[in-house]
Amino acid sequence: MSNKSLEEMAEKAKMASLILAGVNADLKNQALLAMASALEAHSSEILSANSHDLEFAKKENLAGPLLARLALNENKVAGMAQGIRSVAGLPDPVGECQMAMELDEGLTLTRVSCPLGVIGAIFESRPDAVPQISSLCLKSGNAVILKGGTEAQHSNRIIVEQLREAVSKVPGVPVDAIQLIETREEVAEMLKQDEYINLVVPRGSNAFVRYVQDNTRIPVLGHSEGLCHVYIDAKADPDKTVAIVLDSKLQYPAACNAMETLLIHSEVATHLLPRLVDALREKNVDLVGCARSCSLVPGLNRADDAEWDAEYNDLKLAIKLVDSMDDAIAHINRHGSGHTDTIITEDTPAADRFMNEVDSSSVMLNASTRFADGFRFGLGAEIGISTNKTHARGPVGLEGLVIYKYKLKGQGQTVAEYANSNGKSFTHKKLPLVPGDG
Amino acid sequence: MSNKSLEEMAEKAKMASLILAGVNADLKNQALLAMASALEAHSSEILSANSHDLEFAKKENLAGPLLARLALNENKVAGMAQGIRSVAGLPDPVGECQMAMELDEGLTLTRVSCPLGVIGAIFESRPDAVPQISSLCLKSGNAVILKGGTEAQHSNRIIVEQLREAVSKVPGVPVDAIQLIETREEVAEMLKQDEYINLVVPRGSNAFVRYVQDNTRIPVLGHSEGLCHVYIDAKADPDKTVAIVLDSKLQYPAACNAMETLLIHSEVATHLLPRLVDALREKNVDLVGCARSCSLVPGLNRADDAEWDAEYNDLKLAIKLVDSMDDAIAHINRHGSGHTDTIITEDTPAADRFMNEVDSSSVMLNASTRFADGFRFGLGAEIGISTNKTHARGPVGLEGLVIYKYKLKGQGQTVAEYANSNGKSFTHKKLPLVPGDG
Repeated sequence: MSNKSLEEMAEKAKMASLILAGVNADLKNQALLAMASALEAHSSEILSANSHDLEFAKKENLAGPLLARLALNENKVAGMAQGIRSVAGLPDPVGECQMAMELDEGLTLTRVSCPLGVIGAIFESRPDAVPQISSLCLKSGNAVILKGGTEAQHSNRIIVEQLREAVSKVPGVPVDAIQLIETREEVAEMLKQDEYINLVVPRGSNAFVRYVQDNTRIPVLGHSEGLCHVYIDAKADPDKTVAIVLDSKLQYPAACNAMETLLIHSEVATHLLPRLVDALREKNVDLVGCARSCSLVPGLNRADDAEWDAEYNDLKLAIKLVDSMDDAIAHINRHGSGHTDTIITEDTPAADRFMNEVDSSSVMLNASTRFADGFRFGLGAEIGISTNKTHARGPVGLEGLVIYKYKLKGQGQTVAEYANSNGKSFTHKKLPLVPGDG
Repeated sequence: MSNKSLEEMAEKAKMASLILAGVNADLKNQALLAMASALEAHSSEILSANSHDLEFAKKENLAGPLLARLALNENKVAGMAQGIRSVAGLPDPVGECQMAMELDEGLTLTRVSCPLGVIGAIFESRPDAVPQISSLCLKSGNAVILKGGTEAQHSNRIIVEQLREAVSKVPGVPVDAIQLIETREEVAEMLKQDEYINLVVPRGSNAFVRYVQDNTRIPVLGHSEGLCHVYIDAKADPDKTVAIVLDSKLQYPAACNAMETLLIHSEVATHLLPRLVDALREKNVDLVGCARSCSLVPGLNRADDAEWDAEYNDLKLAIKLVDSMDDAIAHINRHGSGHTDTIITEDTPAADRFMNEVDSSSVMLNASTRFADGFRFGLGAEIGISTNKTHARGPVGLEGLVIYKYKLKGQGQTVAEYANSNGKSFTHKKLPLVPGDG
């Protein structure tokens, strides 16, 4: 594929996004419902394309968990359709009035949410990501250029075909709101289209997110792995501690919000650490510890310094004793990835300070790190978990796909009238927000 | 200066930012008031350093307007101090509860505003930008590394010295919250410190903002020039039209929110354009026009295609006839810079459509483009006018220097309890926002 054609795709997406920005909620939802029905109606074609992908993946010896994520069945296709329908059911994130102010009599300013424009979304092998991301983008009035995993190529192609076909039947909704690219070369070209693309959402390894950041001037909503901590304070409740530590490590060890390092206050380590180690060992967790933890627990392997920066995403855990909450906070801010960190304590002021001073997108008290997730957080849908500190942070729902514009309505006012001391002056009076008055 | 020392500065700024994130509003305001007093108390030293800069600038034949921006006097120093005091008087943007939700009984999620961390601010010759940006960053709990214009080197140095000296006298507020760099080489090194710096705010030409975007993986809050349009609709009121056109072009032609292209509906051009041209020519505005405008107005020079993309920032204006509002919107979305665009009309539905479909950070009805400004918009203070579409857009006040974190408070809950159909389920009940309950 030539660069020219990628630029053309990006330009088409931009044109589609400008139209989509003016499409009302009803019409967008009509398109979403048509997309859902189209997937159900063409379930057998989708499954046959998917079996193609699976065959190839097996030949390539794709690992078991990846194969499982790649594989579709009737239920999963129904789930995709259901996912699109629930996005249709969410409130429209566009046109929401966020601020209203009278600047002067007859001169009114509002700040109203609006789409970003064109999203470039790059993701992994799960074909279910295609309808999920497409529907979130369309709902928020954005055009999207999708790049899925190569393993899911046939599945993604037919799914996108069906989504586009469905959109094309809803007059007023531009079909180029959803486009698919398939190769790494196209991704490289896409990253150059900063004239047309407003946000790139890469989901993958830290290295991949970094590659994207290094190769584009388009803003990046990074979704990468997480190095999450649980800190057991001197005032921790033992039973809560055991429950939270086990859940944070074991409930889904491959997830980005699973715990990788356990910090424990030295005052309670003698008492609590052996109990925790027993419980973790029973679940086959490979444990390494600092010198002091090793001296407390027989048979614990010594952690080298690199362990504090390791994201295992597996049944492995590093354990470290600290002498104060300040030491715990300093360790987390130095070694953490700013994803999710939990304190276990009954000391409320300590918890508040921990939650203020730990510089992570989700900070928790007496709760498993695994709660950091768009669905559990009640966001309705999730485009990803952002490791950014700008625009959108932590679990990101539809609000991460919109921005705002200022709308000023006047009656012929000029700035010159306000420029001199003897002229008009601003009232700057906050006005009540009127729902739906975007 | 070696790269090592820039990395050290960035690391110090990071450390300072982590402390500053936990500093309460009173203490931050105390530091701000001390900063204001310090500038007043050392006014004579600041003016003497400034005369040094001026002398050098005159030798270098710096242009008159630049000299005027560089020059300080007693009044301007008092104005700087006053500016800092008004920032102290603004509400604290940190710790604001933006969302509260019960996920389940005894499991409460809040979303609370917090500082970004470390800001890299690069700006032009005005020394007043130093206290302005420093105070906005400190107020929002961020550390800042400043790079001002080389012409203002001596002025900037003494101002930063005084600001740091003032901060150092307020226990608990880290002095490295404000640091200064002075060379282009240091800027290049600063752009590499993505481990420590969270946002770069460049203020300058489009080319400079682009240079910054091309040379960093740190998010960039671009502030560049603007290509603003006024569109005179078929239903425009003639008197409002004349007032707005003149103000948008003439009130401050060098500003980024001044009009560069005038679009006029062909139905009213015959009637209105000669009158506008007379008024603009009387103010010595150099006019160029499309073929059709030239045929309507004697002596108008023909605009070549490049004019539609030209940002004059000067007494020059390009004029184009359009046959519909759709043509005007398409022209603006193609050639505009997404800054500020105005429609003049008495047709409310047309105005609403224009304001929805023009993809600019500020869209206006019957008001001068020159209103697009943080002070006029009532934001209290302005870090810049962002040409981004992510994070912060348009005139940006303190809210552009903060992000949020999620805080989850539980009582020992685990995700496993919610994972099975026979387990607990989420209530996801919105809770009222309690002011100051961050």
